Amino acid sequence: MADRSSPAPGPQPRHGGGLVDAARLHGIPLDDWLDLSTGINPHAFPLPPFAPDDLLRLPDPAALRDLLAVARRAYAAPADAVVLPVPGSDLALRLIPLLFPRGPVAILSPTYSGHAEAWDAAGHAFKRVADLSQAIDAASIIVLANPNNPDGRTVAPETLASIGERHTLIVDEAFCDLAPEASVVPMIGPRTIVLRSFGKFYGLAGLRLGFVIGDRELLGPLERLLGDWPVSGPAIAAGRLALADTAWQAATRTRLATERARLDSLLQSVGYVTIEGTDLFRSVITQDAAALHLALARQGIWTRIFAEDPTRIRIGIPPEGGFERLERALSRGF
Amino acid sequence: MADRSSPAPGPQPRHGGGLVDAARLHGIPLDDWLDLSTGINPHAFPLPPFAPDDLLRLPDPAALRDLLAVARRAYAAPADAVVLPVPGSDLALRLIPLLFPRGPVAILSPTYSGHAEAWDAAGHAFKRVADLSQAIDAASIIVLANPNNPDGRTVAPETLASIGERHTLIVDEAFCDLAPEASVVPMIGPRTIVLRSFGKFYGLAGLRLGFVIGDRELLGPLERLLGDWPVSGPAIAAGRLALADTAWQAATRTRLATERARLDSLLQSVGYVTIEGTDLFRSVITQDAAALHLALARQGIWTRIFAEDPTRIRIGIPPEGGFERLERALSRGF
Repeated sequence: MADRSSPAPGPQPRHGGGLVDAARLHGIPLDDWLDLSTGINPHAFPLPPFAPDDLLRLPDPAALRDLLAVARRAYAAPADAVVLPVPGSDLALRLIPLLFPRGPVAILSPTYSGHAEAWDAAGHAFKRVADLSQAIDAASIIVLANPNNPDGRTVAPETLASIGERHTLIVDEAFCDLAPEASVVPMIGPRTIVLRSFGKFYGLAGLRLGFVIGDRELLGPLERLLGDWPVSGPAIAAGRLALADTAWQAATRTRLATERARLDSLLQSVGYVTIEGTDLFRSVITQDAAALHLALARQGIWTRIFAEDPTRIRIGIPPEGGFERLERALSRGF
Repeated sequence: MADRSSPAPGPQPRHGGGLVDAARLHGIPLDDWLDLSTGINPHAFPLPPFAPDDLLRLPDPAALRDLLAVARRAYAAPADAVVLPVPGSDLALRLIPLLFPRGPVAILSPTYSGHAEAWDAAGHAFKRVADLSQAIDAASIIVLANPNNPDGRTVAPETLASIGERHTLIVDEAFCDLAPEASVVPMIGPRTIVLRSFGKFYGLAGLRLGFVIGDRELLGPLERLLGDWPVSGPAIAAGRLALADTAWQAATRTRLATERARLDSLLQSVGYVTIEGTDLFRSVITQDAAALHLALARQGIWTRIFAEDPTRIRIGIPPEGGFERLERALSRGF
């Protein structure tokens, strides 16, 4: 984004995060906030300090090759698929529409807003559709997130593999580390492109690391666009360690599932019934979403509401001590 | 880049760096190398440790705004120009050809190889031209680096401002921190785009940070491509500090100028006459470039030679202790 002369934040920001503006808006010091506005793991992968060379030197091609080998194993990518590193899956999803001639595109919605922005910016005609059968009828290119954000909807990978035989599929698997069995990567076809996010599950969103997986020829132009230093030294160092640590990954999946259940119990105990999402965030469907967001914000708890859906509030998994604070805030009412 | 099945490095790599492969090729342990293959400042800006939030959270929009305000001052960008943060100026220069319809493009050559790759990948017809007057006649879009890599050629900013009135100009100012008076940014016109690199002068190439400066409307599509988290938390933190530290910048310019003179004296003392470049690297023009590169590599000193110009060897400014080692290696002959 560019520097803007009037940065005053509205009450419904474009994304989660943006805590500095939230703190200013609500007059609560930055350090006093409990940030539940994103779907980022509060229990980050424990990193050792970076080596000086990670910061000082150009990222070494050999280190990058090693990262890609580790990522290939972590995502179970078949040998004939290419794995490209990207400085955040958000940037990647904005570049992907450039790979295709303009054509009918369907975006399974609601979903992460960046997809529609990207296809729109690239001049593609696109439709938002509510289910996959509509997408199949309406478009030659289908974009979906699996599991989906913000509602957690999951499509079986076999279904996607089958659709991918006749359609170009862009599958955003940003939250798929929570449910590796839902990934289409092991059975990826030549017209399917998968996006993986590193920052969410590993709790290291500041590093900007992601991967694009797909057919080597289809992704050739993207590879050339990204050049020889697509990701930073710190991102390479972190990715090499974290993507190889299957024990941490398994323990983290268990831990987040437990905490998700605890968060659901807490929300149910104060009367919320319709709760959906993934083990990294819960979406509560309620008429009082905006009022609840505001009541929590006034108590220094930052959640996410959506301009396009006033009945939804998204709440991330709390960090240590956060459950108790959220419980007190919710029980206080508004 | 993608993972490749046969990573065996040739003796003439695409860029400087790549020390892991060099070490393997020459059978010298990685830690024993003196890397002079890049134009990166060996005296990096001294960074404090990163705050945990720089790694864990999504980069905050307020922190990004602050970085851009600091960058605007550092580069003396006028109020009507936009300053966009990018994850390395290399990625930015590969995206820029996408902003333009296909048209005659002239690249002032020799220069950094990424420019030709980028325009080629985007399907533009381009010519390499040896001087600016040829470029003016041949093309509507002119690409040049100022000061230039690898020969150090500099064009007066007033000349560029004048050319920019009738031509679209892409000016790669990756080495312009060494000579701020050579920058066209303060007099930038509506058809000129300037690229700035952070990693070279500040010695932090691993962080991947750069900026694109130009007309707000012209750069609008690039801004949308980059999305809301274009650069990492560590890059934002480093940029906010380093770009604001005018005392460090001035001392560093003086130090590098002194060391460049010392390197030139050393090269002259062993008989090299034609030396060009900037205060971050020296290009020696000599028939024995390949042999010298190999002789130095066998002594664990990594330099840069060029497939397209066998008479050129580029040598970076040595770090502490590096001058003595380079002197011993050069005096040993080959």
